[in-house]
Amino acid sequence: MTLRFEQIVIDSLDPRALAIWWKDALDWQITYESAAEAAVEDTEIEIAPDASVHPSLLFVPVPEKKTVKNRLHFDFVPDDQAAEVERLIALGATRADVGQSDVSWVVLADPEGNEFCVLSAR
Amino acid sequence: MTLRFEQIVIDSLDPRALAIWWKDALDWQITYESAAEAAVEDTEIEIAPDASVHPSLLFVPVPEKKTVKNRLHFDFVPDDQAAEVERLIALGATRADVGQSDVSWVVLADPEGNEFCVLSAR
Repeated sequence: MTLRFEQIVIDSLDPRALAIWWKDALDWQITYESAAEAAVEDTEIEIAPDASVHPSLLFVPVPEKKTVKNRLHFDFVPDDQAAEVERLIALGATRADVGQSDVSWVVLADPEGNEFCVLSAR
Repeated sequence: MTLRFEQIVIDSLDPRALAIWWKDALDWQITYESAAEAAVEDTEIEIAPDASVHPSLLFVPVPEKKTVKNRLHFDFVPDDQAAEVERLIALGATRADVGQSDVSWVVLADPEGNEFCVLSAR
């Protein structure tokens, strides 16, 4: 079983501008750009790996339910997409329709409805 | 300038149950639990650091604006909280009121309104 925490996808009105803003805010680098998308990451990690840089997940209580599609979600890279999707659904994930139509990734939701994607294996 | 990407905070109806679900989904570990909160992280990273585990940020276009408080947001640990908050506001961040009252962290929003927190220095 392998799920590598690959990226946090952030819905944006202006992806490139927001990518540049975060690059500056964190002193990270633009590592990918297309007409529609941009990625930012800390390229120095490869030079000086530091476990503390990796974010953990902290679950905190709130009274309100999720009402709209999350503005942020997680992408994971599996070793075997079909097997991981099956395993996650067995754990309680559900398939989610966010209008993705015919794409290479699978959109799932966790037990509270938080969307995440299992990308194609690489 | 130092901002360490510390954790992704996930609002939850049942934090402990959701933490356990993600621990199982990712084969990570519960590394912190209180009456109200639980944290999950990949403790194996300390044993075998791998830059690819670190998530990058991918900005993708969507037509709709943010309408509600994000269900996910980022926390950062600064070396100097006041200085970092000042720097981020100068970059275009704004102070955000999500009902946090008198707390040790500062809630900001990026240029599209995405909330994030600058924790106290550690």
